[in-house]
Amino acid sequence: MVDKNSFFWQMVDGRLPPPACARTLGIAFADINPERGTIEVDFEAKPEFLNPAGNVQGGFLAAMLDDTMGPALVATLDAGEFAPTVNLNVQFHRPAKPGPLKGMGRVVMRGREVCQLSGELFQDGKIVATATATAVIRRM
Amino acid sequence: MVDKNSFFWQMVDGRLPPPACARTLGIAFADINPERGTIEVDFEAKPEFLNPAGNVQGGFLAAMLDDTMGPALVATLDAGEFAPTVNLNVQFHRPAKPGPLKGMGRVVMRGREVCQLSGELFQDGKIVATATATAVIRRM
Repeated sequence: MVDKNSFFWQMVDGRLPPPACARTLGIAFADINPERGTIEVDFEAKPEFLNPAGNVQGGFLAAMLDDTMGPALVATLDAGEFAPTVNLNVQFHRPAKPGPLKGMGRVVMRGREVCQLSGELFQDGKIVATATATAVIRRM
Repeated sequence: MVDKNSFFWQMVDGRLPPPACARTLGIAFADINPERGTIEVDFEAKPEFLNPAGNVQGGFLAAMLDDTMGPALVATLDAGEFAPTVNLNVQFHRPAKPGPLKGMGRVVMRGREVCQLSGELFQDGKIVATATATAVIRRM
């Protein structure tokens, strides 16, 4: 049962502005399925994210994966709940260039408090990086 | 023996501009010791990095840790070598606010190819996040 008064759904419905970090990463939510715990998120890698080799610095790919997996869980929270990430583990598979990337996130295990998440990041249909994360649900 | 003609030292010496990702994260190198494999890096968390709770999104802290541990290793490379991160594991300990952060990085194990790195990120003298990473040395 989704709480449409949560921060996340107010943002998705345009009742609240997206957070600054989401704008920085060029986020657009393509598909959100809180019943299945899955999400599909579009990102835009900007020139400001590039390393000396002209590829997206790995940390910014980690930020995109965090902003894929986090929302997969946050979409299931009630108003007044939040879920900080306590651990993030990223594997980098190939370089990413400036331009669009697609994140696919999933709540693997949703406990009352501790939740396990996974995410994959694609560019031009090829996998760029994968991640797992642990988040903990807290009440304000 | 440090190769002062490597990209990294040309950048530190001001002969090459810093990469875009470093400017985005507000990097300044405070101390670099390639013989010991340690580094101290200053960052500036900007309003663009904030999540809905007003804290720095974890992914941007991961980006800072990546840009702490990477340079600790890169400072030891010869010209023509580079060292992409293949794995990054971050533990988040407390929220970070906009403003200065300090990264401390170390090459834990420097193989001919596979290198193990560790890093810690502080704000106001308190530990915010810690990380380990694996990087692999490649030649252009």
